Formats: sequence, C-alpha cells, structure tokens
Amino acid sequence: MLERMFNPKVVAVVGATPKEGKVGNILLKNLKDFDGKVYAVNPKYDEILGYKCYPSVEEIPDEVDLAIIAVPAEVVPSILESCGRKGVKNAVVITAGFKEAGNYALENKITEICRRYGINMVGPNCLGIINTHNNLNATFGRIMPPKGDIAFLSQSGAFILAVLDWAKANNVGFSKIVSLGNKAVLDEADFMRFLARDEDTNVIMLYLEGVSEGRKFMEVAREVSKVKPIVGVKSGRTEAGAKAASSHTGSLAGSFVAYRTAFRQSGVVEAESIEDLFDFSLILRKIRKIDGGIAIVTNSGGPGVIASDAVEEFGLNLAKFERRTIDRLREILPPIANVYNPVDVLGDADADRFGRALKIVEEDSNVGAIIAILTPTAQMDFIKASEFVLGIGKPIVTCFMGGESVRDAIELLKKHGIVNFLDPVKAVRSLNSVKRFELMKRKIEKEIESIEIEVDLVRVRDLIEKHRDKKVLTAESFEMLKAYGIPVPPYGIAKTAEEALKIADKIGYPVAMKVVSPDILHKTDVGCVKLNVGRERVVSTFYELVKRAEDYLKADVEGVMVQKMMPPGREVIVGMKRDPQFGPLIMFGMGGIYVEVFKDVSFRIAPIDRDEALDMIREVKAYSILKGVRGERPSDINALVDVIVRISKLSLDFDEIVEMDLNPVFVYEKGCCVVDAKVVLR
Amino acid sequence: MLERMFNPKVVAVVGATPKEGKVGNILLKNLKDFDGKVYAVNPKYDEILGYKCYPSVEEIPDEVDLAIIAVPAEVVPSILESCGRKGVKNAVVITAGFKEAGNYALENKITEICRRYGINMVGPNCLGIINTHNNLNATFGRIMPPKGDIAFLSQSGAFILAVLDWAKANNVGFSKIVSLGNKAVLDEADFMRFLARDEDTNVIMLYLEGVSEGRKFMEVAREVSKVKPIVGVKSGRTEAGAKAASSHTGSLAGSFVAYRTAFRQSGVVEAESIEDLFDFSLILRKIRKIDGGIAIVTNSGGPGVIASDAVEEFGLNLAKFERRTIDRLREILPPIANVYNPVDVLGDADADRFGRALKIVEEDSNVGAIIAILTPTAQMDFIKASEFVLGIGKPIVTCFMGGESVRDAIELLKKHGIVNFLDPVKAVRSLNSVKRFELMKRKIEKEIESIEIEVDLVRVRDLIEKHRDKKVLTAESFEMLKAYGIPVPPYGIAKTAEEALKIADKIGYPVAMKVVSPDILHKTDVGCVKLNVGRERVVSTFYELVKRAEDYLKADVEGVMVQKMMPPGREVIVGMKRDPQFGPLIMFGMGGIYVEVFKDVSFRIAPIDRDEALDMIREVKAYSILKGVRGERPSDINALVDVIVRISKLSLDFDEIVEMDLNPVFVYEKGCCVVDAKVVLR
Repeated sequence: MLERMFNPKVVAVVGATPKEGKVGNILLKNLKDFDGKVYAVNPKYDEILGYKCYPSVEEIPDEVDLAIIAVPAEVVPSILESCGRKGVKNAVVITAGFKEAGNYALENKITEICRRYGINMVGPNCLGIINTHNNLNATFGRIMPPKGDIAFLSQSGAFILAVLDWAKANNVGFSKIVSLGNKAVLDEADFMRFLARDEDTNVIMLYLEGVSEGRKFMEVAREVSKVKPIVGVKSGRTEAGAKAASSHTGSLAGSFVAYRTAFRQSGVVEAESIEDLFDFSLILRKIRKIDGGIAIVTNSGGPGVIASDAVEEFGLNLAKFERRTIDRLREILPPIANVYNPVDVLGDADADRFGRALKIVEEDSNVGAIIAILTPTAQMDFIKASEFVLGIGKPIVTCFMGGESVRDAIELLKKHGIVNFLDPVKAVRSLNSVKRFELMKRKIEKEIESIEIEVDLVRVRDLIEKHRDKKVLTAESFEMLKAYGIPVPPYGIAKTAEEALKIADKIGYPVAMKVVSPDILHKTDVGCVKLNVGRERVVSTFYELVKRAEDYLKADVEGVMVQKMMPPGREVIVGMKRDPQFGPLIMFGMGGIYVEVFKDVSFRIAPIDRDEALDMIREVKAYSILKGVRGERPSDINALVDVIVRISKLSLDFDEIVEMDLNPVFVYEKGCCVVDAKVVLR
Repeated sequence: MLERMFNPKVVAVVGATPKEGKVGNILLKNLKDFDGKVYAVNPKYDEILGYKCYPSVEEIPDEVDLAIIAVPAEVVPSILESCGRKGVKNAVVITAGFKEAGNYALENKITEICRRYGINMVGPNCLGIINTHNNLNATFGRIMPPKGDIAFLSQSGAFILAVLDWAKANNVGFSKIVSLGNKAVLDEADFMRFLARDEDTNVIMLYLEGVSEGRKFMEVAREVSKVKPIVGVKSGRTEAGAKAASSHTGSLAGSFVAYRTAFRQSGVVEAESIEDLFDFSLILRKIRKIDGGIAIVTNSGGPGVIASDAVEEFGLNLAKFERRTIDRLREILPPIANVYNPVDVLGDADADRFGRALKIVEEDSNVGAIIAILTPTAQMDFIKASEFVLGIGKPIVTCFMGGESVRDAIELLKKHGIVNFLDPVKAVRSLNSVKRFELMKRKIEKEIESIEIEVDLVRVRDLIEKHRDKKVLTAESFEMLKAYGIPVPPYGIAKTAEEALKIADKIGYPVAMKVVSPDILHKTDVGCVKLNVGRERVVSTFYELVKRAEDYLKADVEGVMVQKMMPPGREVIVGMKRDPQFGPLIMFGMGGIYVEVFKDVSFRIAPIDRDEALDMIREVKAYSILKGVRGERPSDINALVDVIVRISKLSLDFDEIVEMDLNPVFVYEKGCCVVDAKVVLR
C-alpha cells in the first residue's frame, strides 16, 4: 500500500516558497534530481524555482501521488482535507507543533481526516522520507545518502541528519529512509511490513523511542524477520533514559524489559549503541547464518589472539580444523607459522600466502565464517589481499588494521559488501549478531503452539466481577488460580474461631493462618501470618491475629485464611505484569536472593507455549538447582511449565488482571504448589 | 637510566646496507630527520646513503649512545660484545630468531652479555623504538607518527605498525613507542618507570601478551599510576586466546583472572578491545578525575536519551541541577526545551544558544563533567560550537555526530585535546574509564597496611618439611591453619577404633569421621566421610570407613579423622592459588551455587590488609546474605576478614604452598570455623 508513497509519479510540495533557507524552499530544491514530476503549492506564486505553482493541491491538473506538507500547524488540517478531496493517498507532514508540543487535539484532528480519506500520512513533526533508488529526497535535510540496501526508520529526525552526514562521508548506502515523527497515522510496523517486500532493501535499521502498538509491532516484526533482518536500538532503556525520552517526545515509554523481550520474541536484533546499530546492520545485509565455527587468519599474532579471546567471550566457537586443513597449511606456511586456529601466516607473508591460507581454511567443513586480520607490513599488498577475500564464498569479515595503507582495499571490500573493522573485537561482536539473529529466526519459524487446557473462565469472570472494587486480591487469588488448574494448598476462610478450627480439622495439621484484609498487603512484615499452627493453638491464634490487625493496625478484617502448611520445596516465583505496550509480561525466577540480588529471572510476553515455558525455566542460571545439584533429586519442571502456560492463558483471557505474583511456589520431586499469591486488578 | 636511549646524541645502525627494502636500509632511511648524529656499521661499505660507515661499532670515532642492531641472529652476540667493549649502553636488537623460534640458548647468551656490560637492550625480535620529540625513528616501519603525549609499549610489533598507520590517518600523536619484542633484558616495567618521569608523556598505553615479572610489574605500575595513567589491554584472556598466545610467543601466560586483579590493584585501566585502548588513553591524557555528576547538553533528544541510558548503565550519575541552573536555562531556551539533565537546546538551536547552555551547565556545582552532543542541522555552526566547547574548563567530551559537516570542528577539538565520539555510548564508556582510574588511584594512594598477627611459623615449616613427599595435605592442613590462628573444629586423627572413641569422647558428640589418605581427595564423593556420628556408632564407623577405603578403593589409609560436628552456619569459601606471575591470588565467595553457577567470587593478590579483605567480602553480590536478609541476623564478617588476612600472610610466608582451599568455612553470628580444608604443596 505504500508503494506509491516511495515511488510516486507526481509529487506536490505544499508550502513551497522561493525564500532561501525556508523549509518549503529546501524541500523543493531537494527534489531536483527526482525521477518524477514535481508541483509547488502556494497561493502567492505562479512558479517557484522553475516548478509550476498552484494555489491548492486540488487545482493541480494531474493525479498527485504524494503531498509533502510544510505549512503552519493550524493550516495542516485544511491542506489534508484538500488532499483528501483531490484523492491524494500519501502525505508527509513535516510541520511540528502537534502532540510533541501538547497539541493533542490538533493531532487527533489530522489523524481523523487521514482515516476518513484513507491518506497514508508520515509524521507530523518529521524530517520526511527518502528513496535513493528514484532520487526521491522528500526531506529538508541537506544530504542525499548513497544508494544502498539498508532501510532506516527513525523516531528522531536529528539522528537521521547525523546518520546521513556520516553515511555520505563513509560511503554507506541506504535504500529508504523514514523519519517517523509523531506517528499519527503510519508507524514503524507499517513501514516494516512494506519494506519486507521491498526488493531494494536487505536489512531494516530501527531507531525507536517507543512503539505505537506493541502487539502489532511484534506480529509484523515476526513476519518480517523471516524474510530479512531488523536491527533496532531502543532509547530510554534505563530510568534516567526513559525520563529523558518522555520529556523529549510524547511517546508512552513501556518498560525496557518488555521491549527487550518483545525484540527477542519477534526476531529484532537489539543494538545497545549506535555503533552496534550500524555494525550489525552492515553485516546482516549479507550474512544471515553461520554454519560452523569461526576461523581466524592473520599476519599478526597479537590481534589474532584478541579475536580468539572475543570469540570465546561471546560464546561463539573457534572452528576445530580437519587434519587435512592442518596438513595443507603446513605445506604452504613457514615452519614456525601457527597452522591451528587462529592461523598466523606470519608478518613476512605476502598477499599470495595469505590468500592461499584463506582458501584452505574456507575448504574446511568445520569452518562457518572467517575473520581475516591483516596489519600493514612491507610485504602485504592490501588490494591483492582484498581480492582474495572477495574470492571467498563463506561468510567473511575483515580487520585490515591501519589508515592510509588499507583505505583503498577497505573501499574495494565495501563495494562488494564485505565489512571491515579496525578492532577484531568488533568483528566478533558483529558475527555474534548474526548468530543471535539465526537463533531468534529458528524459534520464530516454529509457530507458537496453541495450548489446550481446561479452565473455568466463568468462575474467574465471577470473581473479578465480585471483587471489582478491590485493587488487590490475596485470599481470592487462590480461587482464581484453582479455576485455572494451578495447584494451591487446601484452605478455607474463617470468620470465627470456630470456623477456623473446623477448616483446620478438615485439612489437617499443622496449618498456616493469615489475616485476610484489603488493608494489609505485606502480611508477614506486620505479623499477620502465623505458620505451623497446631490444633491446640488455632483458636488463640485466630483471636491474636484479628486483634493485631484490628486494634493495632486499624485494618478492616474480612476473616482469617486457614491454609495447609505445605512441606518445604524449592522456592520459585512466577509473576505477570501487564505492559502497556506489549501486554502480559511473564516472569520466572528462583526465589529470594536469586531474584533480589542476582536478578536471575527470565521474561516472556504471552502467549507462551510449553516449549517456551521450558526455555524460560532453563534460561535462569539457578536452573541447576531445579535439576538437582550435589546429588539432590530433580524438581518437577513439568509442573512449573504447566503453571507458566496457565498463567499465560489467564492473563490473556482477562485484561482486568494487571499483575500477578505467585511467590513462593514450592516445587517438589512430583508436583508443585503455590504457597502465596497476589493478584492486582485494574 | 633510559634517558640516553630515547635522547641519544649518536646512533649507530649495525647491519646497515645500501640494498633497497632490507631492514638495515630502512632503518637508516628512517633516521634521516633524527636530531642527532648517525653512523652506519657494515664491514663491506665505507659509506651508505651519505652516512659514514665503519666495519665495527668499536671503530666509530665517537661516543655511541644507541646501537640499532639488524644482523643475523647468530652474529648478534658478537655485536653486543663489541658494543659492550665500546661502552655503548643502549641497544635495540631488531633481529628475530631467538626465544620465539626456540633458540633459548642464544637468547640467554645475549641477556648475559648485556648484563655483563650493563647494556639496556630492547628486543630481540622487535620493531624498534620511536621518540617523536627528537625525530628518532629507530624502527623498520615506514611511518613516523605525529608528535603527541601518548607513550605506547607493545609486545606485538605488527600491532604497532597498524597503530602507526591508523594514527597518522587520524592525526593521533605519540611521544614514545617501544616494541618490546622478547624482553630479554628490558621489560614493560622498566619502560613504565622511565615514562613516569618523561615530561613528553601524559598517558601510557600498553599492549601485553604477558608480563615478565608480575610482582615487579605491579610495584612499578602502582608507583607510575600515582603520576600518570596506564591503560592496558592483555590479550590471551580466555582459554582459546591463551592457547593462541602461547603458540605465538614464548611468554608464559598467567591466568587472566590474575592479570585482571593485578591491573586493578596497581591502577592499570584495563581495556577489553583496541578501540577501548585508544578511547581510554585519549581521554585520560587530560581528564583524570570527575568531581560530580555527568551533564548532557544536546540539540537532539534521541542521542541525548541514549547517553542518559548509558550513564545509568555504567553506574555513573547524571548530575542533578541546582535550582538556579534550571532557572537560567529556562531564561535562554525556548519554552518546550528540556532544561533538566539531559538539556535539549532543540534542533533549531544555533551555536550561541548551545554555547550559553553549556556555560550555564558548567557553572552548576553538581556537574563534574559534560557530554556535548550535536547533530548537523541547518542552524548549527560546528566551528563556533567547538569554540564554545574549548571555553569550558570542566572535563568535557563531545559527540559531534556526522561526517563532512563536523570534520573540521572535530579536528579543532582534537588539536586542543578534546575527544569526540560518533557514538554517545562510547563517550560515556570513556568517561567511565576516568572514574575507574580515579577509584583505583584513591586506593593505591592509601598504602597497604602491614598486618600484625601472631603466627607459628616454625610449626608450619615443620609440617611442610615433614610432608614434603605428599602433594596434597588434608588432615595436616588443619594443623597448618591452626598455627596461623585460623579457627578449625576440635579434631584428632585415630589409627585405631579405640583411639577414635577416645578422641570423640574428648571433643564431644556428634562427630564427623573422615578417612585420611593421600590417595583420596574427594572424600565425600566416594563415601569416605560420615557425618553426625553418635558415640554408639564411632567404632563401627571406623571399621566401615577403613574397609571401604582399603578394600574397595585400594587406598593407603593413614587413619581416620574425628572432628567435632560444627553447627551449621552460612557457608563461604576462601581459597588461594599461586599465580606463576603474580604470586598468591586469594579468592573469596559464598559457597555452593554462588560460586559454581554465578561465579560470584572476588579476587585479590596478596598481601591483603583488613580493609582490602573487607572490600573483597563486600564485592561479592551474595554479600547481602552475610549482612542478614529477611530479618536473619548478620554473620561475623570480621571473623572472615581475619581468615582472609591470615591466609594472605600464610601464602606469602610459604612459597611451597601453591594452593589452599578452605571449603566450606561456616560463619556464625559470632566467629567462624573452617570445616574442611585442603593444601597443595609444590
């Protein structure tokens, strides 16, 4: 649907002006090389810079495919109306002064107009769009980047300016660039969907401060990632960053954990810095998969060692060479050369020796990718060396280290899509992004299993209706979990001491007794929980607890929960928090210090199938405890998987539940049991 | 003592030749701009390239300060002898073919000659040395770097070639460069000591594959770091890297943990990549201290947010502005600008607005350093902006993001020592290196306290003598620990069942019983330990254990250790491993999964004083367990401090002990007790 936006036959610049330095003037100038027709729109002129000028879009005697709008904010609605009447289907609104300046009403108004007329609008408050392949520069930046196959979507216009400037100096090419602006109509997902089918684009680079609709983003990204890689940086990751982001744009910042999880689950390669964003994008243009270990070929031991270190530290594998490779290398290399990986062809090697070693290494079936590292020596002809590199079919990156001596060779490599790094560590880091992409892609290609479990929807619906006025459910949350087949201990709620005794007699001793009160959330901390209560103490404990809660804490007491004391098991936590962007974010971790100090937890966005739940459990470092360490018996991991998928389902079925905290869950050799739980309603 | 090496009046090139492309030819050519006198040495010629040539060094009718030697390896000893007789005190041996090629004898020979004559020798097997300030290029590389204040010591000659090439293209200046080669006489520490007093040098950059003498390195680095920063990268960090390193040079790779610890304890800023090595060095040239928080001033929200994120992620602080700063910023900035940190002067800002904001932010007393981020906009004059940056007195780094538009401004900044980063994350990362340096320096300036503790040296000496033939001490290690005042449980070793009963009666029940045998190290795993043995079971347990060990495990049994069952406490581990380079490396960690899975341990190289020991304990994440979590009582941390300093002393007093493992140590509310221990002798 965006085909015409990027490949218009006719473009109109609304707000065009002959005044030097004005946006409406720059826009027109930037279109001088455009492979299509351009009209200016401004009631004050008949012609601007040699382009025919009309008082309004409607008066243009041609079908207009794209309107670029740079008029005062308050005029934008009428211009869009005019576009709508004229049948213009694509618009880029450069103008600022909408949501980002607090003018929500004005922004809503233009959104509504676009929806009404079916106008695909970029912006407002943006730099514009670029398609290098037809020379469409619909921005007010001063630079057109070289043609290339990277598409770049950015929520920051200023950042695009910096990137264009840098890209030009470094000869990095782009296919399409979109400054997303306020995303009043079109958002990143819409462009991603379009770019997936764009033949000029091999990789999509994202700079996001937030996404518009989390679920849509994930769904689209999952589909797109199957076809081409998306590399994204999300700013506002930390509290400080998020505060800065929200003072900068009007976008609703979801929690970063949710973003990171959403990226991973939908195949987006996360970059943590701008350098990574470029490095990963450049490498993923061509390399999507590494089948085998990494081989290093170098003329310099030192950097070879640095690369080996990095390979290990990133958890990649150094290829173990076949016997034959070692023999062949030994034949062509001097006796003191290292023929094992990393191969050191020595400082006196010329390009031929290097090239021969490269070829031999490539032919080793254990080698999946090659890092070629060269330092400038008297003997090394870098142009020749790069020609050898270009003859390699397997994934390869280079570290030609230096300045003047290596410049032309690096340019030659770049022309053929081979990425060079000054630093071997960065070369490895980038290959690791390929590995990350590969793993995510493999997971995405396996569809999420739909989960068939029996649950009592009606019971939960009733509970939510009944307790609508409460924010936090404690005792009632057990009821909810039971309805979804999640094991809780036998329990009952007693209004009187006699009832307490009756319940306890029924479930057996010892019991735990807890005050039920909407006013007391952290029951243990204020002494409103008694554990291991025997029959003789049930009645006195009842009175003691109620007295403490009512007299001392002035709490409104609904009763006392009498619950079977469960035998101690390994403690885990299962939690859910509904992210405003992405929906239910499910957490798993081993309890206590593992969560609190080591932050040893794993996250997934629902829905989660059994495989994914098992993955979540395995992902925490303390997983070994569940498997059984030091001769202890393993815990029932299946029972935990079951709890996780049921929590996933429960949180998807009921929007009203914004938070759940099952803490602790005791896991046994067989089965598990939620010992305490809390549910927060909207 | 190296003054004359770097500032010679007279230099002789031994092995000089008129043959193009030969090392002896390049060396001579590279000296053409040298501010001193040059002689060639070669019996075959009278003159080479216009330099007077003599058959031997001894025949030069002048006092020679430095000989640069490039003759076949087997001739090097006689040349050095000749230098010695002539009274030449400094030599650079370029020639390869010594230790690195397996010729240890030849290398030892030249070391001996140099020692005999007191010759300061660089190399052999090196690229040479450079002093830019008198145009001394005593290398066979083809590039002389620009003058500057970075000294660079490298164990890889090839890496120097790459750096020189890169530095020239990027206009990065150096004071002195040394290719360390095989370090047969002079090593990195010798040069570091010299460079500390070198007025042309403000920062020392190190590329090491290993150090020659660990203790000397640490001692020198500690002194030098008080004067100027050392930034170092150590290659061969991982197992893969270390394997590659040892196949590349003859240097003995100490464990990387020891290196990292040694760097930290002696003030060396560790870099993990080549980019970091440069970034950190460039910034530490000028910035040594950050007094206050980080302020960010930008014309572009997006990168500002990225920088804020990074500040938080690196554990630095964003400055909280004073009221007055906010008011002043509000006065000069448009109403929608962000006047809190990060300050966003907005995309339409000119250099003046940016400069005014910068000045106001600088004057805030909470601000310790500034990151100035600018993207290329129509309004921004980068040269003017950089002039404002140069007017700032507080530490400042810039991110002028772009290519052509920012190039000249970046050059101007560089000329004045201001470092520019394309990526805000790298700017923050580099500021963090300053913070790291500052913290290390503060610690180093506080001398290590000498520890006064009473120990029984004689007893340990006896034990070591007595058990010299054993490799691993188990039961005897308790005796050793006791002699050093480290608490162990009451115990005794029984040869017979009757003795076992007698010992147990004396120490009280229940007891633990363990087989004592040099053949059984992992006693628990093979069933040679019985816990909680009551009086009635002592005799039968004795027989059972001995039978199991002798009959079943065919072990040589020395007896059975009867040890008081200690009440359970929190489990910690204290260990020591003697590093071949740096000496006793002491480890502390909480036992079990914290060590095994989370690798939550801390290291120090002995000697360790009480402050340092406390630091070690606090450094582990699980420290909170010792402090007491969830209302539990705190453990006796002082008792642990005491164990650590005593282990430190014990390992320094006895070289023969190569490893100690106190695992577990039980810590109580008051006191602690080593429950099991193992000592490995050389």
